[in-house]
Amino acid sequence: MDYELVDYMEMALNSAELAANRNEVPVGAVIVDTNSGRVVANSGNQMIGRHDPTAHAEMLAIRAAGNMVGSERLVNCDIYVSLEPCPMCAAAISLARIRRLYFGAYDPKGGGVEYGARIFDQPSCRHKPEVYGGIEESKSAALLKNFFQARR
Amino acid sequence: MDYELVDYMEMALNSAELAANRNEVPVGAVIVDTNSGRVVANSGNQMIGRHDPTAHAEMLAIRAAGNMVGSERLVNCDIYVSLEPCPMCAAAISLARIRRLYFGAYDPKGGGVEYGARIFDQPSCRHKPEVYGGIEESKSAALLKNFFQARR
Repeated sequence: MDYELVDYMEMALNSAELAANRNEVPVGAVIVDTNSGRVVANSGNQMIGRHDPTAHAEMLAIRAAGNMVGSERLVNCDIYVSLEPCPMCAAAISLARIRRLYFGAYDPKGGGVEYGARIFDQPSCRHKPEVYGGIEESKSAALLKNFFQARR
Repeated sequence: MDYELVDYMEMALNSAELAANRNEVPVGAVIVDTNSGRVVANSGNQMIGRHDPTAHAEMLAIRAAGNMVGSERLVNCDIYVSLEPCPMCAAAISLARIRRLYFGAYDPKGGGVEYGARIFDQPSCRHKPEVYGGIEESKSAALLKNFFQARR
């Protein structure tokens, strides 16, 4: 079976939902090897569970994919994230040499791609992935809204 | 025995040297619990060894310290890094709520504190540590220079 862009984003949204069930902010990330179409990593936020401020979905997925691929460079890989990555994760995506970034909801307050530090637009940024935002945006936004409303 | 600022930076420089011995770019990071004066993490770069583009010294130290302290927030901790952190690591230091950042050499090409994305100066940055750069700067710069010269 051939998966499409929206299928991979659905997988990331599923990981985001699982994160919410663990009381973590619902964000999920999937990394795909574009040569084989295989999912090489699929992670959700785990900052609280792991006592680790760096355990954002994207970071866990990049670490797992590097381990799976056997290299610190993920040159043939694309990443699907349910929310616009923060500056830490955007910089990690660049360091990992990921080919394309697909993300769901935009994040004006915490994002580091289209907002804030705009990591890929810095002259010192050595690798800029192709970026596609707003994929399945409303589903991602609804997950986040429900999560924060339930906790108020 | 009471340690001082320069002692902690010497520990970070020592971890940087050990990284060079493993053929990793020589950067080291030490995290200190300021209540006890205890070193809670001491790491060097491991990107190549771990197949992990996120395995910068600062990231490994933050992850180890969070695990040691049992929290994703390192509110009473200071970090000593031999080189100006990159944007990924600067953003992680902010997310970890680290109190003070002491760093060695400035990094005009790859730094994200005084150069490039200037992570802590972004209006969307929620926590800005106090920053002190240039501590034992020449030792850190010499380590990096020797490392790259030997590999040319």
